[in-house]
Amino acid sequence: MTEAAGPAPAYAAVDLIRAKRDGADLTGDEIRWLIGAYLSGEVAEEQMSAMLMAVYFRGLDAAELRGWTSAMVDSGERLDLGGLTRPTVDKHSTGGVGDKVSLILAPLVAACGAAVPQLSGRGLGHTGGTLDKLESIPGWRAALPPAEMIAILRRVGCVISAAGPGLAPADRRLYALRDVTGTVESIPLIASSIMSKKIAEGTGALVLDVKVGSGAFMREEADARVLAQTMVTLGEEQGVRTSALLTRMDTPLGRAVGNALEVEEAVAALAGQGPPDLAEVVLALAREMLALAGIEADPAAALADGSALARYRDMIAAQGGDPDAPLPVAPHTRAVAAPATGFLVRLDARAVGDAAWRLGAGRARKEDPVSAAAGVLCLAKPGDWVEEEQPLLELRADDESRFGAALAALGNAIEIGPEGPGELAPVIDRIGMRQ
Amino acid sequence: MTEAAGPAPAYAAVDLIRAKRDGADLTGDEIRWLIGAYLSGEVAEEQMSAMLMAVYFRGLDAAELRGWTSAMVDSGERLDLGGLTRPTVDKHSTGGVGDKVSLILAPLVAACGAAVPQLSGRGLGHTGGTLDKLESIPGWRAALPPAEMIAILRRVGCVISAAGPGLAPADRRLYALRDVTGTVESIPLIASSIMSKKIAEGTGALVLDVKVGSGAFMREEADARVLAQTMVTLGEEQGVRTSALLTRMDTPLGRAVGNALEVEEAVAALAGQGPPDLAEVVLALAREMLALAGIEADPAAALADGSALARYRDMIAAQGGDPDAPLPVAPHTRAVAAPATGFLVRLDARAVGDAAWRLGAGRARKEDPVSAAAGVLCLAKPGDWVEEEQPLLELRADDESRFGAALAALGNAIEIGPEGPGELAPVIDRIGMRQ
Repeated sequence: MTEAAGPAPAYAAVDLIRAKRDGADLTGDEIRWLIGAYLSGEVAEEQMSAMLMAVYFRGLDAAELRGWTSAMVDSGERLDLGGLTRPTVDKHSTGGVGDKVSLILAPLVAACGAAVPQLSGRGLGHTGGTLDKLESIPGWRAALPPAEMIAILRRVGCVISAAGPGLAPADRRLYALRDVTGTVESIPLIASSIMSKKIAEGTGALVLDVKVGSGAFMREEADARVLAQTMVTLGEEQGVRTSALLTRMDTPLGRAVGNALEVEEAVAALAGQGPPDLAEVVLALAREMLALAGIEADPAAALADGSALARYRDMIAAQGGDPDAPLPVAPHTRAVAAPATGFLVRLDARAVGDAAWRLGAGRARKEDPVSAAAGVLCLAKPGDWVEEEQPLLELRADDESRFGAALAALGNAIEIGPEGPGELAPVIDRIGMRQ
Repeated sequence: MTEAAGPAPAYAAVDLIRAKRDGADLTGDEIRWLIGAYLSGEVAEEQMSAMLMAVYFRGLDAAELRGWTSAMVDSGERLDLGGLTRPTVDKHSTGGVGDKVSLILAPLVAACGAAVPQLSGRGLGHTGGTLDKLESIPGWRAALPPAEMIAILRRVGCVISAAGPGLAPADRRLYALRDVTGTVESIPLIASSIMSKKIAEGTGALVLDVKVGSGAFMREEADARVLAQTMVTLGEEQGVRTSALLTRMDTPLGRAVGNALEVEEAVAALAGQGPPDLAEVVLALAREMLALAGIEADPAAALADGSALARYRDMIAAQGGDPDAPLPVAPHTRAVAAPATGFLVRLDARAVGDAAWRLGAGRARKEDPVSAAAGVLCLAKPGDWVEEEQPLLELRADDESRFGAALAALGNAIEIGPEGPGELAPVIDRIGMRQ
């Protein structure tokens, strides 16, 4: 941050690429110049992609990562949430299958007294996006100008909307570039991408839901821990109270996977009728958010007394949606039956996510449309006893031709055995710099 | 080569980048598709640069390198030198300071009975280019259509010309991309770039002059050995009889560094009046070339009897040059004096090359012009006894303002001590698959 004083000197992109390639640390001035010159077109796409691949192999140390993230934040505007009377706290998930947590958590934490400015994204590949899910509600609008977003936040206490083009535009450009150049899977690049948007969003506190397992971006717990610790450190350094929960993503969260299906399950959870694993993750995250926001309140009570659900309905209505409108229902269904009798040992998150994607719930490219109604319902969860031929999954699609690819994606998704998988708590650990 | 049958299937560039990034080997079909799709624009520049950086870190194994090189050769035309009655043999140098060897070697080996189809390049940075040197001769033309090049080769026995755009166009595109993305310094990419052009050129045999030392691309002998062995293997696999000499490049070769200055020294060497280190490298390479071409002849005799010089004059004249025309002379000179009395222990090749470049003999970007007359004359060589204040270097420039930067580049170039550097033979080793 101290490098911000005065204009950065000019560098040659190729010299910086070679330095990083050879394992040198880039200075704050060099990084600031690189990001700025990339945005202005002076550093070409092919130079930045070579730099990103060099970063993939060489990493960024703590100081470089701070500089990189700051440069991305400073590439655009920062929302000013200072005028709100309530403490602000947001949550970010690294993405999973059946992860409708934001839909429940934002109104729940708002009902407990915080302001939740949730800027969300759309899905790509096997994980769905919060905005895609909410767009299955007739009339609901994701795109809000900053002033309207803040007004809803002030009035309702929570808002879920698309990040505007003015927030961290360097991240938007870099993310698109990483996507086509095989440089997505880099912990410092992931951390700076997530944190630059959240810092620019202006939230005072942030809880990260870092998912671990087959359906998550991070399949290994060790990688997830490094990512979580990296983001917690970055957030705290920038004055955002930040902590992370590592949560399990080996099987879909809850029972519903698909846009409208997940909205229905979220509404059930807000009414206290959600699946236990979903409720457990939601409550753990809510408690963490409230603690960071300095609010003493019991989120379970806000689910039980209907205040969280009421807040959800207000939020949907404030963004043009009709919370009472019926959601789209897919005309075609197909059951997947248990191949044997026994305990359901494994119901693979990634495979179910891929199946929902093939059914139309997800997209391969960011410009593709998604189906509101398509998806997968998990009729059994790992640990359940199932009888041969009992339906385990219900696939839903707008078009019968979708079932073939979905069934193929589920090829190895199901494992049945004589013993259950054992109890695995959905929340693995908490990572934070404060208690 | 066997993958050439049938059209290559289509791949997604990002999948291939990620595979290489993660250490997988690419198949011949994948590489063939990648190079072809890059040329057609289907693989974007930023994708190829990410791939090149992944190759920088992960390397290419022998099969990948064969496939990569074949795909580059097959991206363009191949010269057909089959109609020549003499055996064809070429030489390629990895580049050094004062490296005017090609100017002497091509006519010398031609005078001994071989045909030398030398496709050369221009200089970039601290190393000069053979074409730049010859262009200091009034009227001389580097650009020859293939038919004219072959006609001169048939008539004179040697030709030095620019590679046409039809030879290995993929290499041309990739080289330009590597230059701006910090991916030049990769042994498999260097080897495939050099060898694809030489294989497309159609020569039957090839001797590589792999330079080692401060003024060379490869500063370490171990790296130079790997590069030499890699290229020898590639050439032999493609049916080109190939060997390599490792030669020393810690100090400029000969005494002249600069375009017209090097032409003058080359002509002197062709008349048997060249500096001993230059003559030793030229004769070693000539013997190697003649051995690969299956010709028993003594190149020293061809220097002594004037036949090599006559062949040089024919070659220059055949390409429009006047071998008797006076060469440009720089109007400004500046001497660099010995700072002490003693043995000249070190006269650094890289520093002298940089000084010549600053004086105008080289270029920073490939579209820059070069000065014909600028350069550096080395008045003493390592091992010589020198007196304090005796001139060691003579700098030449078209413009006095050039001297400051040249003198700065020479800051640490000169070392004088009580003992000489010891005898170091210019030729370090030979690498080949046959005796």
